[in-house]
Amino acid sequence: GSGERLGGATPKQFCAVQGRPLVSYAVRAMERISWISDIVVVVSPENIETMKTIIEKYGHKRVTVVEGGVTRHRSIFNGLKVFAENEFSRHLLQKPEVVIIHDAVRPFVEEDIVSKVVMAAKEHGAAGAIRPLVSTVIASAADGCLDHSLERARYRASEMPQAFLFDIIYEAYQQCTDYDLDYGTECLHLALKHCKTNAKLVEGTADLWKVTYKRDLYAAESIIKDNLSQQVCVITNVKETVAQVGFLLPESLKSQVKVEAISVSLSKNDIHLQNIVSGHCYNFVCVNDKKRAIQETQQIVDMLEKSNIPLLYPVVLISVHLDISENNSLSIEMEEITTIKKFARETRKKNILVYGLLIQYK
Amino acid sequence: GSGERLGGATPKQFCAVQGRPLVSYAVRAMERISWISDIVVVVSPENIETMKTIIEKYGHKRVTVVEGGVTRHRSIFNGLKVFAENEFSRHLLQKPEVVIIHDAVRPFVEEDIVSKVVMAAKEHGAAGAIRPLVSTVIASAADGCLDHSLERARYRASEMPQAFLFDIIYEAYQQCTDYDLDYGTECLHLALKHCKTNAKLVEGTADLWKVTYKRDLYAAESIIKDNLSQQVCVITNVKETVAQVGFLLPESLKSQVKVEAISVSLSKNDIHLQNIVSGHCYNFVCVNDKKRAIQETQQIVDMLEKSNIPLLYPVVLISVHLDISENNSLSIEMEEITTIKKFARETRKKNILVYGLLIQYK
Repeated sequence: GSGERLGGATPKQFCAVQGRPLVSYAVRAMERISWISDIVVVVSPENIETMKTIIEKYGHKRVTVVEGGVTRHRSIFNGLKVFAENEFSRHLLQKPEVVIIHDAVRPFVEEDIVSKVVMAAKEHGAAGAIRPLVSTVIASAADGCLDHSLERARYRASEMPQAFLFDIIYEAYQQCTDYDLDYGTECLHLALKHCKTNAKLVEGTADLWKVTYKRDLYAAESIIKDNLSQQVCVITNVKETVAQVGFLLPESLKSQVKVEAISVSLSKNDIHLQNIVSGHCYNFVCVNDKKRAIQETQQIVDMLEKSNIPLLYPVVLISVHLDISENNSLSIEMEEITTIKKFARETRKKNILVYGLLIQYK
Repeated sequence: GSGERLGGATPKQFCAVQGRPLVSYAVRAMERISWISDIVVVVSPENIETMKTIIEKYGHKRVTVVEGGVTRHRSIFNGLKVFAENEFSRHLLQKPEVVIIHDAVRPFVEEDIVSKVVMAAKEHGAAGAIRPLVSTVIASAADGCLDHSLERARYRASEMPQAFLFDIIYEAYQQCTDYDLDYGTECLHLALKHCKTNAKLVEGTADLWKVTYKRDLYAAESIIKDNLSQQVCVITNVKETVAQVGFLLPESLKSQVKVEAISVSLSKNDIHLQNIVSGHCYNFVCVNDKKRAIQETQQIVDMLEKSNIPLLYPVVLISVHLDISENNSLSIEMEEITTIKKFARETRKKNILVYGLLIQYK
């Protein structure tokens, strides 16, 4: 898309929302779905470098950047060629059974709807998410007057994601006329026209909406802010007792907030944690049984500082020390509390609020 | 509307945006248009008291509250009856030539589009604002699969405002069957079906959109915040020189921000100013040539305090004293500056930032 309707020069998908480009949210939404093997991002030639920088900055994986065409259909066709035509890409990606087509400007897609659309595509050859119409749709006559209005209940808005058996949609694009490629916008229509495939329509949720106007950017910003405050990352180390707490805590939190749990030792999960941090998580609970819990906390603080995230909003980090030793010394405990207090005072200046919790566990 | 799509119990039009119900913004938008003689707000029986409270609180004028029906068309019909049927209202309003139909959940309507739609209705009998479709519209078959997709360019979304010659739309509603009244949603369709009137379609701007989902409330909130920061009220007293400045200042500001100018003495304009204050204006420039400029400034500060507006955001009030006397005394000037400084320190605690500007003018 070119971002004309947004009234700005920056294409919508590259507009920053909470400091991060919209396309990065959409890529992350897809990345989180483990059974998606490759993500192809099609961008106009002048934005290829920008896109590559975004992929590097936000640590996106499984992403191939492909040069788009002058219209929507030509761009999608280019994206599909990566799986089929050797000359188009140095690394030909393995041809998938099902391909999902999505918009970079729909950042809030959930695994549930993607899964439903993909399953329907497997069965019917093509499938797409739909939504009820918000306004009545009307046809105008040549004189600019009302010709007729459509009965709202009989029609639906075609949204994204859509999914297709790869062979069907690729065949459809190969059959396309120049007129199709230049003036068409609807992939489901191509599958019907060229492959006689009637797509299965899947009712989607309201969050499938597309960022089109400036007001949509405002809305996206508010939704992302809301999501951030309702998301927590729980980190635990490998010891059995701790891992158990690290399992029970996320389970009981899940009814209230969105939980990411990392249950192995920190050093091995640097990349995973890094992804969560760059994914703008603002709440962390770190459970461990080590004598020197502060060191792990320090590692997370360092990571957060590097990410520049605390510049936008304060980050809350709860460091839980689960003391499972038999012989506890009060003086050691007091010392630990003093250390964490001092540490918290320092991190506060960096907009990171550290809380210490010491639990005797027998 | 019942607010079902918003996921809350409060109907959308009563949801607070920046502390003020959405419907109040829509009413104000219409109120600002001087050639609209009456505003009829149709609400469900259980919300009549709420609506009356809103009218009183925000000082809305020219508003008649009418009890709605169980469907959209029945509610609109009730609204129209106020102009035609004596038994329906104690005070029968004068039947207008043209009636505008608008939604309470479209708060950002501008005079320009209202005027265009009304002029078109005068000529064609009916007219309505339209917008390009954001998504492709599709028809589904009985099996939940795609039947066909509509060519996006040939169709439009029907939005509000719409306008009608009163006699046409009233006749159309009188001809309505129960099925029309219970299942229809489109007024333009009624004018076509019952009065053979093909409505003129008028391209509207993006800000005609309807608050439907929670994300739309977020967007409305951000747009209103944006508007507030770009709006200033210039107040001047009657003296000729001052009035001239009071005229030139708004003119030169107009290219940058939205300006409301009040150019007569404050006491007489209490109600107008009160309306601006309760309309959430956060920026004021007060130009006068009185020796005791501080008193006028105090009056505005009192008004602002009563309105509770400074609780949300700081209000900026620039008090300009235009000194046109021949013999200026430095000591009096110094005294004045000291007074305004002291005054500003006090108002700051109330979140009202007062700035004094003393201009020697010969």
